[in-house]
Amino acid sequence: MGPFDRRLLRGLTFDIFGTCVDWFTAVAREIRAIAPEADAEGLAVEWRRRYRPALARVTSGEREWAKLDVLHRESLEELLPSFHLERLTSSEQERLVFAWHRLDPWPDAAAGLELLRRSYVVATLSNGNVSLLVDLIRHAGLRFDAVLSAEVARSYKPAPAVYSMALDLLDLRPEQALMVAAHADDLEAAAAVGMRTAFVSRPAEWGGRQHFQPPPRGHFDIQAADFADLARQLGA
Amino acid sequence: MGPFDRRLLRGLTFDIFGTCVDWFTAVAREIRAIAPEADAEGLAVEWRRRYRPALARVTSGEREWAKLDVLHRESLEELLPSFHLERLTSSEQERLVFAWHRLDPWPDAAAGLELLRRSYVVATLSNGNVSLLVDLIRHAGLRFDAVLSAEVARSYKPAPAVYSMALDLLDLRPEQALMVAAHADDLEAAAAVGMRTAFVSRPAEWGGRQHFQPPPRGHFDIQAADFADLARQLGA
Repeated sequence: MGPFDRRLLRGLTFDIFGTCVDWFTAVAREIRAIAPEADAEGLAVEWRRRYRPALARVTSGEREWAKLDVLHRESLEELLPSFHLERLTSSEQERLVFAWHRLDPWPDAAAGLELLRRSYVVATLSNGNVSLLVDLIRHAGLRFDAVLSAEVARSYKPAPAVYSMALDLLDLRPEQALMVAAHADDLEAAAAVGMRTAFVSRPAEWGGRQHFQPPPRGHFDIQAADFADLARQLGA
Repeated sequence: MGPFDRRLLRGLTFDIFGTCVDWFTAVAREIRAIAPEADAEGLAVEWRRRYRPALARVTSGEREWAKLDVLHRESLEELLPSFHLERLTSSEQERLVFAWHRLDPWPDAAAGLELLRRSYVVATLSNGNVSLLVDLIRHAGLRFDAVLSAEVARSYKPAPAVYSMALDLLDLRPEQALMVAAHADDLEAAAAVGMRTAFVSRPAEWGGRQHFQPPPRGHFDIQAADFADLARQLGA
């Protein structure tokens, strides 16, 4: 891959969970509302910890493709006994699954996206299914030019097919596209198909329970403190 | 299909060309700018007349799937000799193909969509490829919650797979979705998969060159003069 030249960029694709929105706070809040006695923060963290293994079972072919809503429901069911929450009704469980449709944006997200949208096409590129993303974006008051989801590729990031699908639909060559994420594996997979990469720090993603370590400088094309900083670095 | 009950509705899917935007005026204008001596309005109309037959060659399996940009380019090439425009360079032809990415909205479209978006998920459901739709929506200043394209189904309306793809991605049962279009065949195909239908009159679509005849009352669930009228009838 050649040196990074931001003048080639035309489109930015954004990871959603953790990068544009804070899943921890909203999911823990919903759990607390339904089960005030439960360890809401612990359950939120454990639920999210099951995310990558659940996706990996799909991308490895061990399990057939299913929407993220379904994977969230399965992980929750598995976790309820260890949190002494077997008593939750199925409609309460459903409400928790749909908590992932109503996450709050990071404070800089909406304004940063507006700024970036003036100069670039901005699209989601998320493992969330399309209906989840639509609900989430409406709830969080974000604006994207296109809602692209791994659902369309019937795979999950970091599988290369997901990034290639986005490039194909947006009609961009890899060097014209910048993947924006708070997670190194997402960016490394984007770089592997030739996309440019921007790491955005979200140290509070796990409610401060995970020790946050930014990637070494130079590992990605851009390293930004938030979306406003990203816009500045892109001259947007 | 049961009687129309607007309280069941959750999502509206919109045809784009002719329904949300006026292709005739912008395409004729671009042709005039490149070839002032040509019959620009005649070429715009003939170009659009080749649209349905081109899609039908794909949906019948006669031709493999290709983005609408490619079909537009092929139709233009076929038409140039009859309009004495063989002299156009390939970059001029490309500029004309991309005229379809820069169409102007009907005057009521942006405000009507904003109004409808308060009560419903609004999505495109167009034969335009995703990158075309993204450019168009940015140019026209429209706002949708999701950009859904026949490209994702690798087919073209009125093939049932395109409508089913939209219902699946939006997680809507057919009776929860309303297809909005200025074309009867689009709506009839949507109704065939169980979607509800709204016909919006766009008598100027062909620059007034085609005699406009609205469908008989009752043939579709809603018949509206424009998007403001549609919003009124939906109580939005």
